[in-house]
Amino acid sequence: MRTVYVIGIGSGDPEHLTLAAIAAMNRVDVFFTIDKGEVKSDLAALRAELLARHVNGLFRVVEAPDPQRDRAAERYEAAVGSWQGEREALYERMLTEELAEGESGGFLVWGDPALYDGTLPILERIRARRPGVEIVSVPGISSVQALAAAHRLVLNRVGRAFTVTTGRRLAASGMPADVDDVVVMLDSRTAFAELTDPDVDIFWGAYVGSSDETLLHGDLQAMKGTIKEVRAELRERKGWIMDTYLLRRRDPR
Amino acid sequence: MRTVYVIGIGSGDPEHLTLAAIAAMNRVDVFFTIDKGEVKSDLAALRAELLARHVNGLFRVVEAPDPQRDRAAERYEAAVGSWQGEREALYERMLTEELAEGESGGFLVWGDPALYDGTLPILERIRARRPGVEIVSVPGISSVQALAAAHRLVLNRVGRAFTVTTGRRLAASGMPADVDDVVVMLDSRTAFAELTDPDVDIFWGAYVGSSDETLLHGDLQAMKGTIKEVRAELRERKGWIMDTYLLRRRDPR
Repeated sequence: MRTVYVIGIGSGDPEHLTLAAIAAMNRVDVFFTIDKGEVKSDLAALRAELLARHVNGLFRVVEAPDPQRDRAAERYEAAVGSWQGEREALYERMLTEELAEGESGGFLVWGDPALYDGTLPILERIRARRPGVEIVSVPGISSVQALAAAHRLVLNRVGRAFTVTTGRRLAASGMPADVDDVVVMLDSRTAFAELTDPDVDIFWGAYVGSSDETLLHGDLQAMKGTIKEVRAELRERKGWIMDTYLLRRRDPR
Repeated sequence: MRTVYVIGIGSGDPEHLTLAAIAAMNRVDVFFTIDKGEVKSDLAALRAELLARHVNGLFRVVEAPDPQRDRAAERYEAAVGSWQGEREALYERMLTEELAEGESGGFLVWGDPALYDGTLPILERIRARRPGVEIVSVPGISSVQALAAAHRLVLNRVGRAFTVTTGRRLAASGMPADVDDVVVMLDSRTAFAELTDPDVDIFWGAYVGSSDETLLHGDLQAMKGTIKEVRAELRERKGWIMDTYLLRRRDPR
């Protein structure tokens, strides 16, 4: 039997780590990391810090290069699909070649493995083909939760629904008609700035949870220009950006 | 200055606690708890265990009875509103009478303060009236995340949105037309059992994260009777139940 832990480590604050995540990290013999290039080196440094601080025993680290994703592809889902296929082959090699019978592997993922992360579905497909592989998912604080905490917000309003979506879908469909609270992730194209809704507030955060946390909020139309500028400056300065926001209709329908 | 920490303690597993939550608990002078009656006594016991295990210094505990909510009310939002008004008066008395200048208060809340919890909005309204009160929200692992982890699920599908809603809204509106993944909370009326959708899977969990965790999943039409029965039995046995589920259209639209 080989066990693979997919461990959510939170969204930038080393204190986001749960006791369960620390316990799981201490059961791991081999940590698998994917090199995403220099733009994520701050994140890689945090990962190394967490291992140094919380893991007592010996462990190995196996690093593999990330397959290139075709970001220019017309069909986003197809591009992600083929990239996931390559990742799957890579992960399967790592699990079989780097992990001995009875050993445990670990992936440390940002935020929560259950939110816009590809690790679990890839491992589940490998597990379906390979008897003797067990997957354990350890939840972590997501950037959505860190955003809400930083703004001291509740994501839903009393008895109401909220939706979590991507920048790409927001750009395609705008604010949904039947939901008044929308959390947007993965918005590299600043889709919020194209919305013309007059009755929406935005609660925006970059690098939420980390020491670089930057927060802005207010009426969407009044703030969208400022947020777009601040976002561009931050991205320029650090070389990468991770941001999330909540769009909230002021008068629920 | 008085600081009030609203601390998410996770959804039943004592190991859900984050390092940030432990640090915040250790800055609290007075923990405020609301007595929700015997049905929640298991939860009160976990709370006491967490305090005993993780808080080093001295602290006080102030317990108040929960105002009665009119559960039979026709207009759910109005009933919640009046109950929140009574809670607000109660919290304000606790903050002013039990907390000295410079002291910190703490509320330990289930799951994440940002998800279907009334504590933060109540405290924000008090803060707006009382200069010198500061609110800090500390995110925690929600039952939604514990459910996803237990089923080793990702809540969204690639590039897609998901919605979090209540049993009441699901009963009123059914599966949304434009979202294929729906997490349902607070469903005391088992609204899932009334759905007739032939193409939906359900991933259900009760007491997720705790030692009583019970999981069921499969085609909604095939499983809904079983889940309803198991739910009734568990509720009977323990005196209360906390359950959550994901509804997932098999073929995304």
